[in-house]
Amino acid sequence: MKRIIALLTDFGLKDPFVSVMKAVILGINPNAVIIDISHDVKKFDIYEAAFILYGSHRYFPKYTIFLVVVDPGVGTERKVIVVKTDRHIFIAPDNGVLYPIVGEYISNSVIYFIDEDKITFTPKSRTFHGRDVFAPLAAYLSLGYPLNYLGRQGDISSMVKLEWIKPIVKDTVVTGQVVYIDSFGNIITNIPVSIIPWIKINQKLIVNIEGKDPFNVRFVRAFGDGRPGEFIALEDSFGLLEIALYEDSAASKLKVYRGLKIEIRKD
Amino acid sequence: MKRIIALLTDFGLKDPFVSVMKAVILGINPNAVIIDISHDVKKFDIYEAAFILYGSHRYFPKYTIFLVVVDPGVGTERKVIVVKTDRHIFIAPDNGVLYPIVGEYISNSVIYFIDEDKITFTPKSRTFHGRDVFAPLAAYLSLGYPLNYLGRQGDISSMVKLEWIKPIVKDTVVTGQVVYIDSFGNIITNIPVSIIPWIKINQKLIVNIEGKDPFNVRFVRAFGDGRPGEFIALEDSFGLLEIALYEDSAASKLKVYRGLKIEIRKD
Amino acid sequence: MKRIIALLTDFGLKDPFVSVMKAVILGINPNAVIIDISHDVKKFDIYEAAFILYGSHRYFPKYTIFLVVVDPGVGTERKVIVVKTDRHIFIAPDNGVLYPIVGEYISNSVIYFIDEDKITFTPKSRTFHGRDVFAPLAAYLSLGYPLNYLGRQGDISSMVKLEWIKPIVKDTVVTGQVVYIDSFGNIITNIPVSIIPWIKINQKLIVNIEGKDPFNVRFVRAFGDGRPGEFIALEDSFGLLEIALYEDSAASKLKVYRGLKIEIRKD
Repeated sequence: MKRIIALLTDFGLKDPFVSVMKAVILGINPNAVIIDISHDVKKFDIYEAAFILYGSHRYFPKYTIFLVVVDPGVGTERKVIVVKTDRHIFIAPDNGVLYPIVGEYISNSVIYFIDEDKITFTPKSRTFHGRDVFAPLAAYLSLGYPLNYLGRQGDISSMVKLEWIKPIVKDTVVTGQVVYIDSFGNIITNIPVSIIPWIKINQKLIVNIEGKDPFNVRFVRAFGDGRPGEFIALEDSFGLLEIALYEDSAASKLKVYRGLKIEIRKD
Repeated sequence: MKRIIALLTDFGLKDPFVSVMKAVILGINPNAVIIDISHDVKKFDIYEAAFILYGSHRYFPKYTIFLVVVDPGVGTERKVIVVKTDRHIFIAPDNGVLYPIVGEYISNSVIYFIDEDKITFTPKSRTFHGRDVFAPLAAYLSLGYPLNYLGRQGDISSMVKLEWIKPIVKDTVVTGQVVYIDSFGNIITNIPVSIIPWIKINQKLIVNIEGKDPFNVRFVRAFGDGRPGEFIALEDSFGLLEIALYEDSAASKLKVYRGLKIEIRKD
Repeated sequence: MKRIIALLTDFGLKDPFVSVMKAVILGINPNAVIIDISHDVKKFDIYEAAFILYGSHRYFPKYTIFLVVVDPGVGTERKVIVVKTDRHIFIAPDNGVLYPIVGEYISNSVIYFIDEDKITFTPKSRTFHGRDVFAPLAAYLSLGYPLNYLGRQGDISSMVKLEWIKPIVKDTVVTGQVVYIDSFGNIITNIPVSIIPWIKINQKLIVNIEGKDPFNVRFVRAFGDGRPGEFIALEDSFGLLEIALYEDSAASKLKVYRGLKIEIRKD
C-alpha cells in the first residue's frame, strides 16, 4: 500500500540511523512513501518535537502515519503508544511527545499501548528501538495490520503528560511563552494571534521577554513589511504570534531561547 | 502522474517547513517524485540560489518541475512566475532567481505571471507561500493543469533582473567573480575554462582575489593531481574555473566569499 | 525496476551535487527508490565511510545497491569497483572503502573492476564522477545491466586495502580503538560486546583512552539506565561497546575522536 510515513527524530543526518529506519520500513512495505519532517530536533527535547509535530501534522494527507522517535528512555520500561485520529496515525514512545495531539483530538482519537513483544522483526537491541520497534511498527500499520493485535486500548489519563502552558489575554496585556526558534531566528510564541482582540496591522507593541530589556515592535502582515534593523511582530504560518528581525535573526540578536516567558502589550 | 518536482529553498532541514511543502504536494499528486536540490541556500541569498539552479538544472530529466522558494518578499506585492522551457518548468517568486535561466533559454521559453488568487488549496498565510502558493502550484502543474488558466504570459522585460557579471578575457589576463563556495571550500568563479584559449594542464597561474595577496596556482586536471598544501586551479564539474586547496578548504584558508572579484593571469 | 539505491557520500547537502546524482539516476531508472545513508561523512574520510557502510548495510532489503562516493582520487587513475554479495551490490572507488565488506563476505562475493570507458551517459568531467560515472553505473545495474559487460572480475588481492584494527581480549583487559563518534557524542569502539566473556550488567569498568586520564564507567543495558553526569558503557545497536554520558556528549566532554586507542578493564 502506498502510504505516507512521516519521520520526526533527534538522530541527525550524519549517522546512518535514519537511513536504517527507512531501510527497515521499505523492507516490510516497499510501497511506503517516506517524508522527513525533521531529524534535527534538539537531542532529547520532547517539547521541541511535540511543537514541530503539532504545528505541521495538519498539512499531511489523510492516512499519513507519523513516527516520532525522540526517546531518551529507549530500552527502559517506558511504553510505546499509537494514537489514531480520524485522519492520521501517530506512533511514539510514551514520554509526552503525543500528549498535545491527543489533547487536540480528544473526542475522536483512540490510544493504544503497544505490547513490544509482538514486534519481532529483528533481534531487539536496547539502544535503537527506532530500528527494532518503531520502524517495523509503522511499516506493519502502513500495511493495514490490526492495532488490536499489537496492543490494548488505553486512556489519556494513562499517558505521560507534557506541561503545555496556556497563553493569557487580560485587557491590553498578553502573556505566553517562547515555544520555538526557527532556523531564520524567528521567535515563535504559544500565543495565537486570533485570541488578541485588539491587535491590528501597524499596531505598536511593547515586548517583554524574561530577563531581557523591553523593546518595541510593529505588528505587520509579512516579513517584507519590515525595515532593515527593525523588530517586527507577525502572525506566523501556524497562526501564532512571532517576533522577527527584518532579514536577520531576532533570536541571536536578543539571545532568546525556547521556554522564556513573554509579555506583549499595546504601546 | 509520476513527475519529478525538485525543491530549492533557504528553509533549512531543522524546521518542518520543507516537509509541509512535500506533504501538500503529495496530497495533490501522490505520484510526484520529490528531489531536494538544497534547503541550505544562505537565507535570502537569491544569487546563491540562482547559481545552484543554473548549474544543476541541466542534469534533471525532461519534464522536471523546479520549485525555488528563496523569498524575502513573501506576503508582499512581489509576483510569482513560471518559466517553461523545452525540457523543464521553473516556479519561483519574481525576485531575479529565474533571470539567468530565462537568459539561457531566451528563444525557447515562455514566462507566465501567476494570478495568486487562483491558487486556493489552503487558506493563504502571509508568511509561508512555500506551503500555500508554491507547493500547490507545482503539484497542480505536475498533474498537467493548464498554465493559461493560472496566469498570463509575460516578457523577460517585466521580470525582476539579477545582475550577473560577465567574465572578460584580455590576452593573458582573465577577470571574473567568485560566484560560489562549495562545501569542500572550493572557490568557484564565473569563468568558463573554455573561454581561456591559452590555458593548459600544468600551466602556472597568478591569482589575484579582491583584497587578498596574489598567489600562485597550477592548473590541473583533477583534485588528486594536487599535492598537500598546494593551491590548484581546475575545471569544475559545471565547466567553470575553480581554485582549490589539496584535501583542504581554499575558501577558509584564504577567507574568500561569494562576490569578490578575481583576476587570473599567466605566470 | 523498483530497486533501492542507497547513497553514502561526503558531499554534504548544501551543494547541489547529491541532487544531481539523484537526477541522473532517475533519468535512467525512473522507478529507483533512493535512500540517503549519509552525505555528511567527514570530507575524504574513507574510514568513517567504511564504518558507516559496514554497520548499516545489513538492515537494507535484498537487492539494494549501495553507492559510496568518498573519492579524493576522482579523475586520477584510481579504479572503480563493484562488489556483489548474495544480498547486495556495492559500488565505490577502489580506495579501501569496500574492503571490510569484501572481508565480511569473502566466500560469497564477486568483485568487478569497472571499465570506465563503458560508462558514457554524460560527457565525463575529471571532478565529479559521482554524477558522470557512479550514478549512471548504479542506475544501469538497477535495471539489470550485466556486470560482465562493464568490467572484468577481480580478486580481493587486487583491491586497495583498509587497515582495520582487531580488538584483543586478554583476561580482564580488552584493547581496541575508537572507530566512530555519533551525533549524540557517543564513543563507539571496534570491540564487539560478545567477545568479552566476563562482562555483565552493572559491571564496573576502568576505561583508558589514549592521552586521557583513566575513568570509571558502569556497563548498563540502556542509555536511560544512566544517571545525570555519569559515564556509562553499553552495547550499541551494532553490537559494539560504546562509552556514553547520560543525556550528554561523552566525546565532547572527553575530547575524544576517531582513531584513538582504548583499553577497558574490569574494576
